Amino acid sequence: MTKPLLHVLSGNAVWPPPLWLMRQAGRYLPEYRAIRAQAGDFISLCTAPELAAEATLQPIRRYGFDAAILFSDILMVPWALGHGLRFAEGEGPVLPKLRTVADVDALNIDRMVREMAPIIETVRRVRVGMAREGFDRTTLIGFAGSPFTVACYMIEGGGSKDFAATRLMAYGEPLLFQRLMDVLVEATVIYVSAQIEAGAEVAMLFDSWAGVLSPSLFRAHVIAPTRRITAALKARFPDVPVIGFPRLAGPMLAEYATATGVDAVGMDTSVDPVRAAAEVPAHVALQGNLDPMALLAGGAAMADEVRNILRAVRGRPAIFNLGHGIVPQTKPEQVAELVELIRAT
Amino acid sequence: MTKPLLHVLSGNAVWPPPLWLMRQAGRYLPEYRAIRAQAGDFISLCTAPELAAEATLQPIRRYGFDAAILFSDILMVPWALGHGLRFAEGEGPVLPKLRTVADVDALNIDRMVREMAPIIETVRRVRVGMAREGFDRTTLIGFAGSPFTVACYMIEGGGSKDFAATRLMAYGEPLLFQRLMDVLVEATVIYVSAQIEAGAEVAMLFDSWAGVLSPSLFRAHVIAPTRRITAALKARFPDVPVIGFPRLAGPMLAEYATATGVDAVGMDTSVDPVRAAAEVPAHVALQGNLDPMALLAGGAAMADEVRNILRAVRGRPAIFNLGHGIVPQTKPEQVAELVELIRAT
Repeated sequence: MTKPLLHVLSGNAVWPPPLWLMRQAGRYLPEYRAIRAQAGDFISLCTAPELAAEATLQPIRRYGFDAAILFSDILMVPWALGHGLRFAEGEGPVLPKLRTVADVDALNIDRMVREMAPIIETVRRVRVGMAREGFDRTTLIGFAGSPFTVACYMIEGGGSKDFAATRLMAYGEPLLFQRLMDVLVEATVIYVSAQIEAGAEVAMLFDSWAGVLSPSLFRAHVIAPTRRITAALKARFPDVPVIGFPRLAGPMLAEYATATGVDAVGMDTSVDPVRAAAEVPAHVALQGNLDPMALLAGGAAMADEVRNILRAVRGRPAIFNLGHGIVPQTKPEQVAELVELIRAT
Repeated sequence: MTKPLLHVLSGNAVWPPPLWLMRQAGRYLPEYRAIRAQAGDFISLCTAPELAAEATLQPIRRYGFDAAILFSDILMVPWALGHGLRFAEGEGPVLPKLRTVADVDALNIDRMVREMAPIIETVRRVRVGMAREGFDRTTLIGFAGSPFTVACYMIEGGGSKDFAATRLMAYGEPLLFQRLMDVLVEATVIYVSAQIEAGAEVAMLFDSWAGVLSPSLFRAHVIAPTRRITAALKARFPDVPVIGFPRLAGPMLAEYATATGVDAVGMDTSVDPVRAAAEVPAHVALQGNLDPMALLAGGAAMADEVRNILRAVRGRPAIFNLGHGIVPQTKPEQVAELVELIRAT
């Protein structure tokens, strides 16, 4: 029997749609908080295969989600490339600020291949765990940050309201910016390929900050690199689907879905699924997009939003998900309620 | 002779398009920094008619922009309503966090009418100054924050990455949230009407955080209140055009343009003007949308972006602007270069 998520990603409509949630392995789960405390800092958790595999499997045990997603972080690529990364308590990621050609040329792909070994080992252990625990309807998703979003963090040195320094570099130093993007495209292909070889069945590319770009920069630095990565992965692994998530792409979502060659697009919370269903090519699956705050509010407000989404994607390949990561205040019972609601559809 | 901006807002194409820039009165101008220093804190500047009028006129003197926009802040409405507001150095606005029905009921429209007097006086003085200095092709724009965006700041107590508490209240406490929105709709109509009576020729509504909402909340809390405010203003001032700016509305921009009754929509930097020109009804003017970082970078990157925007809006009512406020690092000469570029088109 084909797993539901893979069936959808081959272009088939499945009803009710398969279901998983962004950040399903995370702080809202007491069992996650327990292993997080055990690991020490966040990077140690991402590079401890036993613990990271356990974090990946925890939500599948509770909810039987249709996908498990590798427990890791989009910034593990710059970390492995030697750019430097730490997570400051309550502040999010802190990185050196990339500014020069020398900074780009210092990024070391051989080093990345060595440093990423524990993450690839995590993928292997998750597959072993899934088999051992009989999760045979669940699909394992590997992932990476998309080059533009990773570049954002490397240039700003962390999160930002509007990633102004990144946009300024893209406009004002286009050769430097492209040089960085080229390294990140190559690194992403190598990193994701290794996850697939270790057992990831789907690849997802998170472009969390795609929405800060003007349309011309969006085409140059979101669509073009995603197309390059997708083509390289498809050349090596023709049967492994790719999900692209250009967050806040807004009106550019359909063009992204058409031009990149991805098999599915993630819809953030602001996307109207009715419109996405009308504009995204029919063979490209839609994934999303319940507001995590609607999940947290629960009750009639959540049920209304769920109904709107389901009605919009009915009859086409679709994956139910949130439009953004689940928030830590969410109670595990609230997630159970959502799962019930979808499964009872 | 009709002023170019008003001619566009009556549904006519003017070439080259009239031009002004969001935050054109601001820190990139040395003469602004001088009066800012004189005023003390930011609220004092907004409530000192002589200084605020001077700030409004400064960029017109330098660049002859087609619009002057009242120097003020979108949070002066909650300030005048008695909700409290201060600007902490380097942190942005700080407000009490609205949480209860009592907090909403404490908002006092009579108080607002008294407190807003110096702002209305600023509008009068700007018109007098415009006449005195012979700015007879320049149109004066009055403005307010849109209720949803103002509610965001009142609920979060300041800026936020994702306005999670606001979305949670909109989902989880819909009656409380609607009660707040109703007060803000009423207050906005009174506040903007007073600006128009004092001489504002156009009203602009800034909905800076419209993009954080799901489509159903966007319809309920961005489109519906904007339609109510626009209808109320049109009933009293049928000849005064309204510009709506639902920032990051993404795929909802055309629906907003169609359903609210506004005469023009602002496009943020992420909007593809080609698509907006195709989807927004032909009688609604498009305003925007150069990335302020392209202006800061200057040179070929800026010229390319300007050309794309101009080509997209050619032949329809359009106003050239940035897609977001000008950044303080911009040099006054760079703005002069942009103005040259547009005027030479």
